[in-house]
Amino acid sequence: MTAEIPSGPEAAFRDAVAAWERALGQRYVLTESADVAPYARCTLPLQRKIAAVLRPHTVAEVQEIARIATTFGQPIHPVSTGRNWGYGTACPVRDNVTVVDLQRMNRIIEVNEELAYTVIEPGVSQRQLADHLRSNRIPLWMDPTGASPTCSVLGNTLERGFGITPYSDHFLATCGLEVVLPTGELLKTGFWHIPEAKTKHLFKWGLGPYLDGLFTQSNLGIVTKLGLWLMPVPEHFEAFYFKVESDRDLEAVIEPVRTLRQQGVATSPVNFLSRVRVVTLLHGYPWEAMGANSNYAIPEALQQRLGQQTNTGAWNVSGALYGTREQVRAAKHAIRRTLPKEARQLLFLSEERLRLISRFKAIAGRLTGYDMDVILGLLRKSFGIMRGQPSEVSMPTAYWRNRHVKPIPSMDPAADSCGLIWFSPIVPFSIEDIKAANALGKELFEKHGFDYCPTMTAVSGRCLDCTLPILYNKQDKEEAVRAERCYEALLDGFINAGYPPYRVPVTAMNGVVKSGDSFWETVGKIKAAVDPSNILAPGRYSP
Amino acid sequence: MTAEIPSGPEAAFRDAVAAWERALGQRYVLTESADVAPYARCTLPLQRKIAAVLRPHTVAEVQEIARIATTFGQPIHPVSTGRNWGYGTACPVRDNVTVVDLQRMNRIIEVNEELAYTVIEPGVSQRQLADHLRSNRIPLWMDPTGASPTCSVLGNTLERGFGITPYSDHFLATCGLEVVLPTGELLKTGFWHIPEAKTKHLFKWGLGPYLDGLFTQSNLGIVTKLGLWLMPVPEHFEAFYFKVESDRDLEAVIEPVRTLRQQGVATSPVNFLSRVRVVTLLHGYPWEAMGANSNYAIPEALQQRLGQQTNTGAWNVSGALYGTREQVRAAKHAIRRTLPKEARQLLFLSEERLRLISRFKAIAGRLTGYDMDVILGLLRKSFGIMRGQPSEVSMPTAYWRNRHVKPIPSMDPAADSCGLIWFSPIVPFSIEDIKAANALGKELFEKHGFDYCPTMTAVSGRCLDCTLPILYNKQDKEEAVRAERCYEALLDGFINAGYPPYRVPVTAMNGVVKSGDSFWETVGKIKAAVDPSNILAPGRYSP
Repeated sequence: MTAEIPSGPEAAFRDAVAAWERALGQRYVLTESADVAPYARCTLPLQRKIAAVLRPHTVAEVQEIARIATTFGQPIHPVSTGRNWGYGTACPVRDNVTVVDLQRMNRIIEVNEELAYTVIEPGVSQRQLADHLRSNRIPLWMDPTGASPTCSVLGNTLERGFGITPYSDHFLATCGLEVVLPTGELLKTGFWHIPEAKTKHLFKWGLGPYLDGLFTQSNLGIVTKLGLWLMPVPEHFEAFYFKVESDRDLEAVIEPVRTLRQQGVATSPVNFLSRVRVVTLLHGYPWEAMGANSNYAIPEALQQRLGQQTNTGAWNVSGALYGTREQVRAAKHAIRRTLPKEARQLLFLSEERLRLISRFKAIAGRLTGYDMDVILGLLRKSFGIMRGQPSEVSMPTAYWRNRHVKPIPSMDPAADSCGLIWFSPIVPFSIEDIKAANALGKELFEKHGFDYCPTMTAVSGRCLDCTLPILYNKQDKEEAVRAERCYEALLDGFINAGYPPYRVPVTAMNGVVKSGDSFWETVGKIKAAVDPSNILAPGRYSP
Repeated sequence: MTAEIPSGPEAAFRDAVAAWERALGQRYVLTESADVAPYARCTLPLQRKIAAVLRPHTVAEVQEIARIATTFGQPIHPVSTGRNWGYGTACPVRDNVTVVDLQRMNRIIEVNEELAYTVIEPGVSQRQLADHLRSNRIPLWMDPTGASPTCSVLGNTLERGFGITPYSDHFLATCGLEVVLPTGELLKTGFWHIPEAKTKHLFKWGLGPYLDGLFTQSNLGIVTKLGLWLMPVPEHFEAFYFKVESDRDLEAVIEPVRTLRQQGVATSPVNFLSRVRVVTLLHGYPWEAMGANSNYAIPEALQQRLGQQTNTGAWNVSGALYGTREQVRAAKHAIRRTLPKEARQLLFLSEERLRLISRFKAIAGRLTGYDMDVILGLLRKSFGIMRGQPSEVSMPTAYWRNRHVKPIPSMDPAADSCGLIWFSPIVPFSIEDIKAANALGKELFEKHGFDYCPTMTAVSGRCLDCTLPILYNKQDKEEAVRAERCYEALLDGFINAGYPPYRVPVTAMNGVVKSGDSFWETVGKIKAAVDPSNILAPGRYSP
């Protein structure tokens, strides 16, 4: 008994299900609505109909799934762990698609300590990889994202996500993909397809055309294994923090920070968190103070008041230094002499120093008047992320407009009906562009009645990856519609201003895949060549 | 009157030529054998027949060339400046193909000083770019290869070549391609196809599938513009040099150098030049000493004797440090404490110190007994390459087996009938693999009677890019045949041992493009989708 009735010919779907059941065993083909429903949960204002869910355990099963999908013309949508919160969670771009959940494929195939890489399957979570390295005393760090430790490493990499260590650009750190093509064939990229090669996970480009990029942000193949470079643990590590008190003071630090990135003093991303973003991380939404206005953005004065409790500036900047003790010392000197006076309360934090502060937190709290437990909790977690330890430090933001906030370790924004849409434009690393982008963001968020709480991340010395979450109450229909309109306005507005996003939710494909653009036409030609039946994630970053 | 008679229907070729003449003007369509012949000159043991040569000046002309080629089914082969020496120079993979020489398109479209990038056309040479930056006092460095200053920057980048500064991986430093597809359509990659985007040359991946890799080592499009990141001039720079006296001593330095690369102390490639390689750079072939044996490799004792004149070790290591003064100092300390005693005569060389040595070279020469003019000449040039100044420092190697050596500035190995084939395997950064690869290389070069003179370049902390030139006398038919056999043996032997090359000559495509391999089958499908008439560089890294 199938709970969902597909819009295509029912018989073909039933035949496909029967064939999938033969291939995987009935237990791993979910068609009951109660089993399928969790996969449709999503933080976007979206109600997706999912046809069925397949849960393969091996590459051969994934190949068989693809072959059956092609034979019966059934669209399938692969997810690694299905936690792409704010971009669509596990939801396909269209209705009546079968989700292929790769979570059971969660083997860490190899870790090479000497040459600093791993080979992993889609189901390997951030925590699993970090724990594996730590418990086996392997002196390598993974690069965590700000999302949950339960999220897939491979999934984030294929979405071209970013972390915060020097290995922050996850796709850049890949070396060798194993891919099931829509027709069921198995492709290995780089040197991996040469069986004898000992350099499969050592040299990125291989020989001949470099194909790996085709399998990121696309619908051209199902990646079943990934070679990923890991960072050798450095001799020394220190985080640094400072804040600026106004947007004008922000302008004064832009070029100095750019210089530090371009000159390789800061070898990892530098984060600029707006005051309200910090507030969403540390405090719940001020429902009481907002009273009848709680459908709308909190006013400036309240932002200030909430920020004051935890010593929050207009912008709160953090980064980290990695290297030998002497290199880190040299970098600290360069930072001290490069940053202007507008960079306030510059703090360098080594592990030893964090321990010291923790010991004297009572005194520090009394002297400063700040809530040291909250500040230290955040410091410790952001510190961990910079050192290869995933944590839930960023998760509370997703619960900002949710009246039922869960304890952090059990947070699951999709299951808990949080309303979150990520808008993530790339902005040039120049004062003018940063000013223009923030003015535009502020205007559009205000217009749609949402809190503007950006983080800008200096992913290189050339540009910033901005994350502007639209935080809304998903239970409130009016608010959900407003959130959708807000996203559309942001997408249009930022593209027109010159700042297109690096990644979009499943609901935004029509807004970015334009006809008459030879880029998307070329993608379409390649799609037709490798997926002639158009069964793989139709419409996903493709015409 | 066409000098070459194509193997396909002559009429179609004549019609295509007529159409190309209308599009470009007769002057830029070369069909006379005297005009075409220079394009067939090559350092490989290869006699290629070229149908004609086209010399467009604009992107619109390149589009028209492609459209005409498609219409009349005429194969075309684009070259940037056609100086891919040792890999085929300007030669197509097959006979009777028309070469499209993009040399006249040599505009530097843009240099952005603040965000450190340039946009260039195919004809822009290394010297042109370096001179442009220097004469306009733009504080950015290009990353030169060891090849001639006359070589194309874009061409080398599409071959995925390497330089020696921290921006050494040229394809990695690209950001945005403009491509004429085989059908004549114009494609722009990354964010470049979004007309409003201000991030075209700032953020590499764009939105949606990353396509750029398809246009490197391939025959899928003609790249007519390239966004390329440049390195901001660092506050301080020092080169470092040391040598080891034997292969056993080499083993002792492998892991320390790997650690320096992995830990980011050395942020740019470290070169290991074998003794004979240094000899080929500094001295002509010892024709007299070899006498009747001059068809074969020089014996060990003579290698030693030649090396001694210029203080050459079994392996001669060089690298460079970039950063603030204090960062460079920290890196020097890390190098001093990491390298073992087997690393002899460790020398750090700043610009100031090089000037000092130059001033006292007479005394230094008398004290050491070395030819200081030769040593200083080499130092200055390798020093320049590390600081963004292309030079001919590596060119003499190509003339090793040529009895008529030209003065360095006018060297052109293809025009001067030098015999050179590059074999360039990637080897894991481990003692065992480096030993195995060198043993194999030595064995195969000895077996075929050629000098084994490798350079191993630590392009990362994970692998080495080895360049093993086969240097032969192209006038000698027997030797040319032997060189061909030697390459085939190297290709087979190294692939079987686990060390496939990162790049191959036009003559080696059959040796690497294997049928029944889903990698090459996928490439074939994409090729058919974007080039249905198979007119673009048929057989080049493709089935």
